[in-house]
Amino acid sequence: MAATIEPFSQRLRAAMRRNKSLVCVGLDPNPDNFPQHLGNGAGAIAQFNATIVDATSDLVCAYKPNLGFYAAHGEAGFAALVETRRLIPAGIPVILDAKVGDMDATSAAYARGYFDLLGFDAITVHPFMGEDGLSPFLIKAGRCVFVLCKTSNPGGGEFQDLMVREGARENPFFLTVAAHAADWATRSAADVGLVVGATYPDHLARVRAACPNLPILVPGVGAQAGDLAATVRAGLDARGEGLIVSASRSILYAGDGPDFAAQARAATLHLRDEINILRDTAAVIAIS
Amino acid sequence: MAATIEPFSQRLRAAMRRNKSLVCVGLDPNPDNFPQHLGNGAGAIAQFNATIVDATSDLVCAYKPNLGFYAAHGEAGFAALVETRRLIPAGIPVILDAKVGDMDATSAAYARGYFDLLGFDAITVHPFMGEDGLSPFLIKAGRCVFVLCKTSNPGGGEFQDLMVREGARENPFFLTVAAHAADWATRSAADVGLVVGATYPDHLARVRAACPNLPILVPGVGAQAGDLAATVRAGLDARGEGLIVSASRSILYAGDGPDFAAQARAATLHLRDEINILRDTAAVIAIS
Repeated sequence: MAATIEPFSQRLRAAMRRNKSLVCVGLDPNPDNFPQHLGNGAGAIAQFNATIVDATSDLVCAYKPNLGFYAAHGEAGFAALVETRRLIPAGIPVILDAKVGDMDATSAAYARGYFDLLGFDAITVHPFMGEDGLSPFLIKAGRCVFVLCKTSNPGGGEFQDLMVREGARENPFFLTVAAHAADWATRSAADVGLVVGATYPDHLARVRAACPNLPILVPGVGAQAGDLAATVRAGLDARGEGLIVSASRSILYAGDGPDFAAQARAATLHLRDEINILRDTAAVIAIS
Repeated sequence: MAATIEPFSQRLRAAMRRNKSLVCVGLDPNPDNFPQHLGNGAGAIAQFNATIVDATSDLVCAYKPNLGFYAAHGEAGFAALVETRRLIPAGIPVILDAKVGDMDATSAAYARGYFDLLGFDAITVHPFMGEDGLSPFLIKAGRCVFVLCKTSNPGGGEFQDLMVREGARENPFFLTVAAHAADWATRSAADVGLVVGATYPDHLARVRAACPNLPILVPGVGAQAGDLAATVRAGLDARGEGLIVSASRSILYAGDGPDFAAQARAATLHLRDEINILRDTAAVIAIS
């Protein structure tokens, strides 16, 4: 635990610029999909992740392991999660996608484990319990709290698109969440970001307009078939950054043979460059 | 993994009747509060829990470990969680308070880990991502999915009390969630329950009126100072059951000396009997 830690947003931006990349690889290991030579036991998870990280760490701005794919394997899975954090090189922020949301005493326990002990740089959270429940995360300088706003699943609108009244305003729930998160950001030691699925670029554009300065984590490109061009156009901030594009299955399982690492690297490089071309185009449009 | 498993609601009711109890002990271990002779390392968690369970298992209807208090200790904590599930006697359902909420592929991974592998009987979930994200839990016969509805924290109303329009209806968000959960229950193999904090008995009464048949898990009595009498009156179903009253710190740390188990038992017994007197009173009022 360093006495001082640079803000997450600076560390993220440094990684984005160093690797010229907005790509985040979602480390969501499913041993059923592993190449045969690794076996398909939980014991192979850390080795699989190490190989993926080794093949991609100069091409990404972040990694994002999702807790569920480790919890699936009980103790062995949790051990693999801890090991996975350890094997990611310094300078690449790691977002634990645990979608936590609890009351303050419990969130303090989570923050102790996930931030202080295991060393994750950021976490995803549910907004449902409000700011006070999240405060043990929000007080952590150097970390980032990514608040779920509009999720990429087909039924994400069941609650997120309902119209919500607050004072004189009426907005869909996802925009109400975005407004609250932007407000939390004004008084939190941690950075605050949002999660908006790539499957809803119009929603992403509205969130970006409402929150010009928050980093936005966008899962759902690749296997979930979100529209990449629309996503990049809608989600970039004024600097042409501020967007973390997360892909998992389309990279992890790009190949299923002995060359899976090379295939994963090629898929990451392709996504990185595709996004960068879109960024350049967006910049030209902004200037002209 | 038994080929058939009795519905959670039947197993819960059997434990309630056998132990004449609506009390659930929240197994939220904080080693800083352990009696001195146990030490305060993560290695003491399973022993602490074993002692608490041994002292209370004839007085409760359920146990509820909260994942956060295990995640706080990394690998050792996760190992203690797995061990804790193992040491709870058959016939007492165990609710994993993990407040999960993710998309379907990830929820399937969680269900595999928390239900199939580790053997938890029920889980708490966030409603935010909607029914499709929760479907891997909802399809599990014999389990129960407790949906967060109105949480006990002071700021729980930040989103949960906002007015939400849906079709012609306008309701506070927590009642909208309750209505959706009741709808999910009509087509799910798992039982569906709700989580409503004891700190909001008026809200609890409205949820019970809207959902007469769903089990309601009520945290927040004891250390959080929810009003027990109002909670029991507001939350019982027509049979005088259907309510799971969860207490954690007020039981776990009732004593801090070598006799902490006896103190925990006394606190559990006291809470159980206090609730049962309130149930009897409620029954008399209902009949008269």
